Amino acid sequence: MYLGGIEAGGTKFVCAVGDENGNVLARERIATTDTKTTLSGVVDFFKNFKIEGLGIGSFGPVDLNRESPTYGYITSTPKQGWTNYPLVQTMEEALHVPVGLTTDVNAAALGELYNGAAKGLDGCLYITVGTGIGAGLVSQNRLLQGLSHPEMGHILLRRHPDDDFEGICPYHHDCLEGLASGPALEARWGKPANELPVTHKAWEIEADYLAQALMQYVLIVSPKKIIIGGGVMKQTQLFPKIREKLQKLLAGYIDLSEVKEKIDEYIIPPALGDNAGITGALILGSQVLKNKGISQF
Amino acid sequence: MYLGGIEAGGTKFVCAVGDENGNVLARERIATTDTKTTLSGVVDFFKNFKIEGLGIGSFGPVDLNRESPTYGYITSTPKQGWTNYPLVQTMEEALHVPVGLTTDVNAAALGELYNGAAKGLDGCLYITVGTGIGAGLVSQNRLLQGLSHPEMGHILLRRHPDDDFEGICPYHHDCLEGLASGPALEARWGKPANELPVTHKAWEIEADYLAQALMQYVLIVSPKKIIIGGGVMKQTQLFPKIREKLQKLLAGYIDLSEVKEKIDEYIIPPALGDNAGITGALILGSQVLKNKGISQF
Repeated sequence: MYLGGIEAGGTKFVCAVGDENGNVLARERIATTDTKTTLSGVVDFFKNFKIEGLGIGSFGPVDLNRESPTYGYITSTPKQGWTNYPLVQTMEEALHVPVGLTTDVNAAALGELYNGAAKGLDGCLYITVGTGIGAGLVSQNRLLQGLSHPEMGHILLRRHPDDDFEGICPYHHDCLEGLASGPALEARWGKPANELPVTHKAWEIEADYLAQALMQYVLIVSPKKIIIGGGVMKQTQLFPKIREKLQKLLAGYIDLSEVKEKIDEYIIPPALGDNAGITGALILGSQVLKNKGISQF
Repeated sequence: MYLGGIEAGGTKFVCAVGDENGNVLARERIATTDTKTTLSGVVDFFKNFKIEGLGIGSFGPVDLNRESPTYGYITSTPKQGWTNYPLVQTMEEALHVPVGLTTDVNAAALGELYNGAAKGLDGCLYITVGTGIGAGLVSQNRLLQGLSHPEMGHILLRRHPDDDFEGICPYHHDCLEGLASGPALEARWGKPANELPVTHKAWEIEADYLAQALMQYVLIVSPKKIIIGGGVMKQTQLFPKIREKLQKLLAGYIDLSEVKEKIDEYIIPPALGDNAGITGALILGSQVLKNKGISQF
């Protein structure tokens, strides 16, 4: 049985055909331009295969509320031409298979849970730190969803005393994404993050902000495992710094007894690397097929 | 059918007998002293009734992990004599009925969801601001539980520019609970919160901290409704201030379309007043009976 998966991003749509375990058999990247050009490329790719279900992990915000008249839409994105776009409906009409939709980070959390670093657990938090910052949470085998999907990248932080950068978030200026995303680092230090030396003080400040974010996430949703991916986290020197700073912030309050002395295994990079999202999209496609269009997540 | 409910607090145990809808038929308050005295009072009360299931909403931290050897225990509480105390086991042995345990704030969230301000929804966030600050979340009809239950009262805040109080949290000093709980207000202003006039600037600062907390909760777990109870919230002038400050912080980023123009109905006091917790405990007792000892939450 073939399944389809899409990792729908602001610059490219990664399309894959694979199996219900998230193994990829064929893959194609299609540039994100206007909806018509991009999606006809996507449909052409999938028409080469007999897929039976499709899962999409998309940039957002997306409407995941089944009772909403705009369920399945990309909603208020600033990405031109994609605002209020009925992504699920378009793909269902074109491919005649059940389509499941979630956020890109939710898909990555599913991928890591079923086939990656959180395998065997009933939940994990997946955070991406790249062009933007976002996170998806699986808890008790379900994706957390309330009024909307989480928007964890925009939480408030305490300013690092050495940082007077105003922040780049158009809504909140110096929220987490405004201070710690890739573009924020570039604007703050005048060059792309990957050109800053490992010893640059940028990384102390970055680790401080990410540790603060983890403090809030741990206290509020108590994840079973924390997986941090995205371009900025290719700077692997961040991991030990984040772990150390988080332990300092928690000050022994939280009993991480299941993970104590093992924080190195609690806060980790994705086991699937850049494939977490597409793997999760395939798993979502499988689930949506099994449940006749309704994802169990 | 009679059910039992206990709201187990640091100063008193409120015991109630009621029905599966959370209606209270009989009630008694027993002082929290040592475990033996308190719990024999509790058992004596319940022995007057033929209860078939018991739900407990307890002060914490409590171990709610079914796979843990200390499931059902009050764990690392500073409350003398209660540390590592097997509360569920003790009550099961004494009363021979299935016993369900959750946190006090989780029980209050259940009470408000089934019988109060969030009736008809599939989730809500219940926050108490009193001696301590804590919160319980129901999302998609389940209590959020990860490595442990949430500890939302200890999140980090940005300092209000007019506040140089060091904070009273023994772990984190100036976390939310350290700055905004009842004892923090008393330590900060030199008199109990309920003696401060409505126009005192304490309330501007308090509303700022609570709005910051709601900002983090909304972005991270996107509650269907936010219910704030506890002694400090008897200062009802806080509600409009909190709503206004939260909207300013969110800066239009979150689409509260289901509640837009209705933030007055989104952030509200408990409909059950001080009965939210005991109502939820009875509902938990009913659920634990139906599910043969395993709460569906």
